[in-house]
Amino acid sequence: MFDKVLIANRGEIALRIQRACKELGIATVAVHSTADADAMHVRLADESVCIGSPPASDSYLNIPRLLAACEITGADAVHPGYGFLSENARFAEILEEHSITFIGPTSEHIRIMGDKIQAKETAKKLGIPVVPGSDGAVRSEAQAMKIAKEMGFPVLIKATAGGGGRGMKVAHSAADLGIALATAKSEAKAAFGNDSVYIEKYLQKPRHIEIQVFGDGKGNAVHLGERDCSLQRRHQKILEESPSPALNAEARERIGNVVANAMREIKYRGAGTVEFLYEDGEFYFIEMNTRLQVEHPVTEQITGIDLVLEQIRVASGGHLSFKQEDITFSGHAIECRINAENPRTFRPSPGQITYWHPPGGLGVRVDSGVYQGYRIPPFYDSLIGKLIVHGKNRNECLMRLRRALSEFVIDGIETTIPLFNELIRQPDITNGLYDIHWLEKYLGKS
Amino acid sequence: MFDKVLIANRGEIALRIQRACKELGIATVAVHSTADADAMHVRLADESVCIGSPPASDSYLNIPRLLAACEITGADAVHPGYGFLSENARFAEILEEHSITFIGPTSEHIRIMGDKIQAKETAKKLGIPVVPGSDGAVRSEAQAMKIAKEMGFPVLIKATAGGGGRGMKVAHSAADLGIALATAKSEAKAAFGNDSVYIEKYLQKPRHIEIQVFGDGKGNAVHLGERDCSLQRRHQKILEESPSPALNAEARERIGNVVANAMREIKYRGAGTVEFLYEDGEFYFIEMNTRLQVEHPVTEQITGIDLVLEQIRVASGGHLSFKQEDITFSGHAIECRINAENPRTFRPSPGQITYWHPPGGLGVRVDSGVYQGYRIPPFYDSLIGKLIVHGKNRNECLMRLRRALSEFVIDGIETTIPLFNELIRQPDITNGLYDIHWLEKYLGKS
Repeated sequence: MFDKVLIANRGEIALRIQRACKELGIATVAVHSTADADAMHVRLADESVCIGSPPASDSYLNIPRLLAACEITGADAVHPGYGFLSENARFAEILEEHSITFIGPTSEHIRIMGDKIQAKETAKKLGIPVVPGSDGAVRSEAQAMKIAKEMGFPVLIKATAGGGGRGMKVAHSAADLGIALATAKSEAKAAFGNDSVYIEKYLQKPRHIEIQVFGDGKGNAVHLGERDCSLQRRHQKILEESPSPALNAEARERIGNVVANAMREIKYRGAGTVEFLYEDGEFYFIEMNTRLQVEHPVTEQITGIDLVLEQIRVASGGHLSFKQEDITFSGHAIECRINAENPRTFRPSPGQITYWHPPGGLGVRVDSGVYQGYRIPPFYDSLIGKLIVHGKNRNECLMRLRRALSEFVIDGIETTIPLFNELIRQPDITNGLYDIHWLEKYLGKS
Repeated sequence: MFDKVLIANRGEIALRIQRACKELGIATVAVHSTADADAMHVRLADESVCIGSPPASDSYLNIPRLLAACEITGADAVHPGYGFLSENARFAEILEEHSITFIGPTSEHIRIMGDKIQAKETAKKLGIPVVPGSDGAVRSEAQAMKIAKEMGFPVLIKATAGGGGRGMKVAHSAADLGIALATAKSEAKAAFGNDSVYIEKYLQKPRHIEIQVFGDGKGNAVHLGERDCSLQRRHQKILEESPSPALNAEARERIGNVVANAMREIKYRGAGTVEFLYEDGEFYFIEMNTRLQVEHPVTEQITGIDLVLEQIRVASGGHLSFKQEDITFSGHAIECRINAENPRTFRPSPGQITYWHPPGGLGVRVDSGVYQGYRIPPFYDSLIGKLIVHGKNRNECLMRLRRALSEFVIDGIETTIPLFNELIRQPDITNGLYDIHWLEKYLGKS
C-alpha cells in the first residue's frame, strides 16, 4: 500500500479522496492555487503545497509543478480526481516514468477512450452497442433508403464535414427522406463546400444512462449497475439517480454484462463509466470516462462499495476484492449537485458563505468542500457540495430528499437548492418520466 | 395515517422524529420550554407551542400542558421520544382517553416493565434468562452453600433491605462463603436493622448487550439484532456498536429468538429494548425499555430499517411490514455520543456554540439538535449530537470513525470528542475487548 498520496485536485473531490486515504491510514498531500489557500482540502490534509496561481493552467493543470510537489513531499502515488488532469494520458505516463503511481487506468486506455472515433470503434469491436448508421458517406438516395429502412425512421442526416447543426436534417418517414437528403446536401455544400452526408438513427427522447465499471487490470472486472443522469442543462448533469426508473431488470443485466465483459477483455484497471443514450429498450454508446465521476456516490450508496478506496487498492497492485455475484443492489439513491449559482439563470455566484448548515439523519450523505466563512473563488466550477440520499425504494428516497433539502441552509451566496425544491415536486420527476431534454424544456416554460 | 404528530421532547431526538414525520408527509408540532425557544427542533417544526419554563416538571414533564398543546394544534398523535414521559404509563392512558394516539406500547406493557420486580418475573415467565439466585432470603449457611454451589462461585450476597452497596459482599469460593455471609448479615443488621440477605450469581466482567425488538401489537414481532453498550461511565452509555464484538452467530440467534418469541407472546407494540448482562456465553436480563433508545441509529444502519418511521406506522394501526427472515444485517455501525461536557471531568459545558462543522462523506451520519450560534441551556442533559458511522466490517468502521472525528469541529464549548479520539486508539477498544467496568478503570488510570 502507498505511504503518501498526492491529490491533484481541489473542492469536494479532493476531500472525498482524502477521506478514503485517511480510512486506509495513508498520509495525504493537498496541492492548491493561491486562490485556494483557505480551502477545506488544504486545511484537512496532512501536508499541502502551493503550486501556482489561477487559472488552472498555472496550477492544477501544470504538470511540472505537480511533479515538483510529489518530489518535495515524497508522495508515491497521485489521485487525479475528475476534471483537470484526470484523463490526460501524458500526465499518467510522466508520473510512471518518475516511479509515481497514477491512480487510474493505463495511459493507453485513457488515450483510446479520449478519442471519440477510436472510442466508438473500440466499443463496436468489444460488442458494446453504438448508434447505428451508414459507415461513412451515403452514395445515393437508394442506398440511404435501404439503410434508413433497416434501422427504422426517424433518421438523422448529417454532413460528414459538419458541425453546429448545419447540414443536419431529420427524416421522420420514408416520404421525408428524399427532400431531407437533398436539403442536407445543399446546406452542407453551402456551409462546407462538400455535400457528403451520412445517416444515423435519430433518438428523439433518449435518457442518459451510464454503467459504472471497475477492473483490476488483471482481467477481473465487474459492473456496479447504472446511473440515470438524464436531468441535464447544456449537457451538465444536475441530478443523478440509481437505479434508473426507466430500466427493467433484464435491460440492466444485459447492458451491465456486455460492458463488464468488454472491460475484462481489455483488462481495464480502476473505475470507469461507459455512457449511453437509451431509447425504446436499446442502448447507444456515447463515450467512456476513464476516471471517477462526480456522481459516483449514488453507486456507493446502493452497493456499499467505497469506489475511491477500491481505486487506491487496485492501483497499489491489489486484485479486485469482489466478484460480480458478490455485488448486491440495495434501495435507491439520488444525488443533487449543489452549485453556487443562481437557480434560474445559472450565473455563478462566488462569494462568502455566511451560514452553512447541512442536513443530517438517516440516509443522508453530504460530500462538500466548503465551510461557513469560506469565500468561494470565481476561478473554478461552481460545484460546492453534493447532497446524496438513500432510501429503501425510490419513493422513500424522494421523500427523504425533500426533507433533507428543507433542512439545508446556505447563506451569503445563491445556490441550486431552490431549483431542486421545485423539481422534486414535479410529477414527471416523481414518476421518473424525464429524458435528456426535459429540464431545458421545463426551464424554458417556467 | 396521522395528519399531525406532536413531539413531546427536545434536542436531537425531537429532530429525529420530525424527520421521520416529514418523510411520511405528516405535519409536526414542536413543544418547547422558554429556555428552548431558539432550539432547532422548534425552528424546523411546522408549528410550535411554548409549554412552560425550566425545570422539565413545568414543561416537558407537565401532562396538562402537553394535552393543551395537542388540543390547540389538533395533533392526533404524540411521540414521546426517550426520557421525559416516554415510559410514563399514565401519560399514555390520558392521551388515549382523549383519543390521541400515544406512539409507543400499551400502558400495561409500560407499567409492567417499569417495575423492576414485575419485569424480572415477567421475563422469567417468558423464558428470558435472568440472574440466578435464591428466590428471596436465604435461611441458613447450608442453604446458601447449596445455592452457591449450584450456580457456581463467585456469588454476591445482598441485603434484602439493602441499597448503596451496604450489606453487599462477594464470596469467591466455598471457603469464603461463611465469612462473607456473616459480614453481610451484620452489616445489613447495622445499616437496616434487618439481617436478611439473598444470594445472586456475581458477574465479574459482564458486557452490556441489548436486543432491539419491534412488534405490531397484533402478535407479530421480530428482533433486530443486538447493540453492545458496554462502554459506560456511571451507568451512562457513551459509545454503542452493533454487532457486538463479543457475540458469535449462535449466541446472537439464540437470544434474539428468545426475546422475539417473548414479544410475540405478549403482543408487544412498537420499539423496545431488552437489556442484558452477558458473561461467559450467558445472558442475564436487566430490564426492558419500552421506548426508542438513544442508540437506535446503529441498528438502523446495519438493518436499513427506519425505526421511528415503523413506530409511527404501527401506532397508526399498520401491521409489521417485515418478517424475521426479511431482516438482514449488513456491516458494522458505531455511535459516539457527543456531549457538551469536559472530556475528563464530565462536568457539563453549556454555552454558545461558536463554530459547528459536522463531518460528512460515505458511511457517516450525524443526528444532532444544535447549530452554529445556538446557546446550550444548562437545564437539560448534555447530549448535543450523535456521530454514527457504518462500514462493511468493524475495522473499516473504526477507521471511518477515526477520520470522521478528525473532521468534527465544535468551538465555544467543551465536548466529548477528544475522549473518543483517545478511546478509538486504545487496543482494548480496537480489539473489542472491553466490559462494563473498562471505561471507569481507564479513566481512573489516565
